[in-house]
Amino acid sequence: MPRNAFYAQSGGVTAVINASAAGVIETARNYEDRIGKVYAGRNGIIGALAEDLIDTSRETARAIAALRYTPAGAFGSCRYKLKSLEESRVQYERLMEVFRAHDIGYFFYNGGNDSADTCLKVSQIAEKLDYPLCAIHVPKTVDNDLAVTDNCPGFGSVAKYVATSMREAAFDVASMAKTSTKVFVLEVMGRHAGWITSAVGMADDADTPIPLLLLFPEVRFDETAFLAAVDAKVKAHGYCCVGVSEGLLDAQGRLLAEAGSRDAFGHAQLGGVAPLIASIVTARLGYKNHWAVADYLQRAARHIASKTDVEQSYAVGKAAVEFAVRGRNAVMPAITRVSDKPYRWKITEAPLAKVANVEKMLPREFISADGYGITGKARAYLGPLMRGEDPPPFRDGLPHYQRLKNVAVAKKLATEFKV
Amino acid sequence: MPRNAFYAQSGGVTAVINASAAGVIETARNYEDRIGKVYAGRNGIIGALAEDLIDTSRETARAIAALRYTPAGAFGSCRYKLKSLEESRVQYERLMEVFRAHDIGYFFYNGGNDSADTCLKVSQIAEKLDYPLCAIHVPKTVDNDLAVTDNCPGFGSVAKYVATSMREAAFDVASMAKTSTKVFVLEVMGRHAGWITSAVGMADDADTPIPLLLLFPEVRFDETAFLAAVDAKVKAHGYCCVGVSEGLLDAQGRLLAEAGSRDAFGHAQLGGVAPLIASIVTARLGYKNHWAVADYLQRAARHIASKTDVEQSYAVGKAAVEFAVRGRNAVMPAITRVSDKPYRWKITEAPLAKVANVEKMLPREFISADGYGITGKARAYLGPLMRGEDPPPFRDGLPHYQRLKNVAVAKKLATEFKV
Repeated sequence: MPRNAFYAQSGGVTAVINASAAGVIETARNYEDRIGKVYAGRNGIIGALAEDLIDTSRETARAIAALRYTPAGAFGSCRYKLKSLEESRVQYERLMEVFRAHDIGYFFYNGGNDSADTCLKVSQIAEKLDYPLCAIHVPKTVDNDLAVTDNCPGFGSVAKYVATSMREAAFDVASMAKTSTKVFVLEVMGRHAGWITSAVGMADDADTPIPLLLLFPEVRFDETAFLAAVDAKVKAHGYCCVGVSEGLLDAQGRLLAEAGSRDAFGHAQLGGVAPLIASIVTARLGYKNHWAVADYLQRAARHIASKTDVEQSYAVGKAAVEFAVRGRNAVMPAITRVSDKPYRWKITEAPLAKVANVEKMLPREFISADGYGITGKARAYLGPLMRGEDPPPFRDGLPHYQRLKNVAVAKKLATEFKV
Repeated sequence: MPRNAFYAQSGGVTAVINASAAGVIETARNYEDRIGKVYAGRNGIIGALAEDLIDTSRETARAIAALRYTPAGAFGSCRYKLKSLEESRVQYERLMEVFRAHDIGYFFYNGGNDSADTCLKVSQIAEKLDYPLCAIHVPKTVDNDLAVTDNCPGFGSVAKYVATSMREAAFDVASMAKTSTKVFVLEVMGRHAGWITSAVGMADDADTPIPLLLLFPEVRFDETAFLAAVDAKVKAHGYCCVGVSEGLLDAQGRLLAEAGSRDAFGHAQLGGVAPLIASIVTARLGYKNHWAVADYLQRAARHIASKTDVEQSYAVGKAAVEFAVRGRNAVMPAITRVSDKPYRWKITEAPLAKVANVEKMLPREFISADGYGITGKARAYLGPLMRGEDPPPFRDGLPHYQRLKNVAVAKKLATEFKV
């Protein structure tokens, strides 16, 4: 008898996490003898705890296929971390109760390293309670910080967006620099690791050189050295572009954006390291500045997603189901790079114990000696992940994205669960 | 005997101003009997004053064609306003001196309403000095505030970018709202007129409804009413998106971003009305916020330019040359809308006296009665301008934009001119 599957999206969403959802659902539909219905958690794991399940079988094949080009989380995501089995025992037992009520035999959890940990614990409690379950983690994070996998679905598209945006802004600044803006600052995501910051560096290449400085979360901010570097770029090229991580730290290791920093006019700064850096440049060097904070635009920009990223996102969803029907448990489909040139990759199996709660940091050898740029090794790594275009359909000039019906599954439990 | 042409880019650049340059240069190359070389001003009109001219005949046909998909100003632009003939007599006479030295018979000035005024004055001084010159203005501005023309080249692409970005961010926020961000604020350009703000409204349509509030520069900010509107959207839909003009004014008519406003924590704000609005929402309503400031990204985003905008930008460049060879003077090619459905437009001739220094404001009938949205009339106007895609070529995952050689023309004057 086929058993049902549960799928949930976890944590910050991406431009391509729905491509993984499409991979899971479409592949499950190919294994009718093994997998019954795919139920999605409304707003992630909270949907499972609250027995608020979405019946994806009520969606047409066309709607599910359209998830491939629709950004963000089609079923809703959540920031809700289950702790250890001891601390969160009630939640884990509730999950088992809901899964049992709906005959869930497969658990697909689509998220980062926190959710890899949750997925692992779900497989452990199921085993302890003698409940047969295949728990498979589906990797996703713009932060690119999951272990074992060469890269994370979601990252390549953010990388393409930030590099494209910086390149375009650089053309603008170059045009204006003679009489107006000389320094442009773009703030990007990645609080702990500088993967996205490193991708900004790809805006500048041999074909299209750009005077560009990067401020990594891995390199403590040295105002004097930074200002000297900016000044040198402006003197040599007429302008300078700066890509800064939201997680930039000062010499004492405090976040610049939260350190109660004061700008040149003595104003305290509220959020946004880009305006802070920009105001320092203007106050100390006198150069007119402009700054941008891309925020959610960068991780939602499906219109300029990387084709490689879309394909890999779909592939990890598909592989998760294939692992499940082969009876695998507590594993994650990982992307393994076979070669750089030509870029080739394959899906391999990673044990969740090696992924859960581990943060993969940007290698120091990806950052140039002066701390303000990227190395050839970084370029060889980043290049293929950003490659290929896969635009969504447009209607009346705008991307046309899919919204699902998200029909609820009838509840079977009399008990309520307060999240 | 053919005479040479001078072309210059003026003021803030756009994603498509180079398409107008391509229209001018390619069309001039078709009139060899009338037009000799096209010289471009390096950094706009400053290049003419300093006799720093670029010989566009040194660029290949392929390079000029590539300007059609290259954002920003290929020859450099400048913010440098010539004043009245009395105040700036020395500059105007210098222009004539340089034009005479290089046998310039055609003056093409690509800019907004300031530069339309300059173009008009150049035609007047030429006439006064008996110097034969056709002075043609080529319209350009993301602000969409030029008179006579139905719309301005550059605006449609910004409109497409901001509407796309808001729609994508809205999908993201909708996914996260259950446990995280409930209010997202996007700041857009357009200090005096709310044209770009109105375009944000296109993110929300019948197909893809989004709980969205717009804060126009035309509508004074009423904090109490705004907070009530945000709260109502969050209560009804779980989240709310806000598009705010950088030029939003408080009840006293002061720019919010510069009014020394203090956030909920008593911090003075430096620049950026988006973080200010976001902090007010969180302080008063308790909703978690995220905010973005697109800044130059919005006007440089050639990767998502409107095809209509690209075609019209090219067309006004082409028409400018055709006007010139027909001996027209002190005019501008304007875009005249023939019909909305199907959208049809043609190029007509506008006298510069009607364009110079006039700002075309957003009609009040484009703003909904409550002041937070757009009307059907606005949609009928905006829709066609954003329509069609015209992506640039990509290389290794990034847009590949053209850089010109920009070879200088040998100077003929012994005199220097200090700008």
